[in-house]
Amino acid sequence: MNFLEERIVKDGIVKEGNVLKVDSFLNHQMDIELFDQMGAEFKKRFADRPINKILTIEASGIGIACVVAQHFGVPVVFAKKTKSINIEGEMYTAEVESFTHKCKNQVIVAKKFLSEEDHVLIIDDFLANGCALQGLIQIVKSAGGTVEGIGIAIEKGFQSGGTVIRNLGYHLESLAIVDGMDASTGEITFREQ
Amino acid sequence: MNFLEERIVKDGIVKEGNVLKVDSFLNHQMDIELFDQMGAEFKKRFADRPINKILTIEASGIGIACVVAQHFGVPVVFAKKTKSINIEGEMYTAEVESFTHKCKNQVIVAKKFLSEEDHVLIIDDFLANGCALQGLIQIVKSAGGTVEGIGIAIEKGFQSGGTVIRNLGYHLESLAIVDGMDASTGEITFREQ
Repeated sequence: MNFLEERIVKDGIVKEGNVLKVDSFLNHQMDIELFDQMGAEFKKRFADRPINKILTIEASGIGIACVVAQHFGVPVVFAKKTKSINIEGEMYTAEVESFTHKCKNQVIVAKKFLSEEDHVLIIDDFLANGCALQGLIQIVKSAGGTVEGIGIAIEKGFQSGGTVIRNLGYHLESLAIVDGMDASTGEITFREQ
Repeated sequence: MNFLEERIVKDGIVKEGNVLKVDSFLNHQMDIELFDQMGAEFKKRFADRPINKILTIEASGIGIACVVAQHFGVPVVFAKKTKSINIEGEMYTAEVESFTHKCKNQVIVAKKFLSEEDHVLIIDDFLANGCALQGLIQIVKSAGGTVEGIGIAIEKGFQSGGTVIRNLGYHLESLAIVDGMDASTGEITFREQ
């Protein structure tokens, strides 16, 4: 097990319905030292890529992205989620449909912060069905930029998001891939990487 | 002028209605090196305080808080904004009324992440009327914790938030206090500190 998998086993809580609660260190309370380790690991995994910008999405992606960015020496842009359809023309927008929440959201980024010169690393805390991620990729493409890689903390391997993104040829690195969880025993099965 | 004031003069944009846009380096695109300088400065200003946790609020406070936290070696908790009133009993909640948006929002933090043992530094990007900040203070108080200090990037000195908080005896440090802006000339007046 790597450092993140160990931490998930130690402090993650498995709940009914394939819910994994990691809010004590990842997405409500945040362990910044852990984020720093994640940054070092992503830097290793994307070492050969000419990354000049990190893109993430509010809210829980922002903390990880900012600490990871220190390892790359690049700025972070975060996409905003909005329900409003009245967007200025100065925004890239992607409409993403949530499988879980059964609602449509718009994801927006100001045009001035992404262009065809950008080589983007997308960072997020979770990947399940991949709706948010699909929106971020769409936005980078709208800008004419290049998705150099996608770095995820925890991927739910039993949901389709990761497979779809890898099938499309993106360089996706998830630090922990959960292939199964048992709410009665609390056991978590990670994919060998 | 300090480093943040210089950056505001260089890249901030003054708009009609006392709006200061700093989204190219602070709250949409984020300059992580600048955040690191802010962290060093807050560490200096709160050097004598026994801070063991940083509290911020989604979304734009999170990035700053995480980078600042590295200078204190402490975890970050971010409060969530929600409109839902159906909150589990495991949450501290504060209802905050926005002067600007004329709406009420709930700010919530899970009880397990704040207690009477916590000595909290509150971090946020902006302070204007101080609604969000009042909610965060209320939540720390509900938990029985101590607000050791409040670190703000940009305070709008011509709005009431900062004065109220200082009058209440809190140790509030704003790295830049804007006392006036002129949208026609783009000129920004900072308070001498």
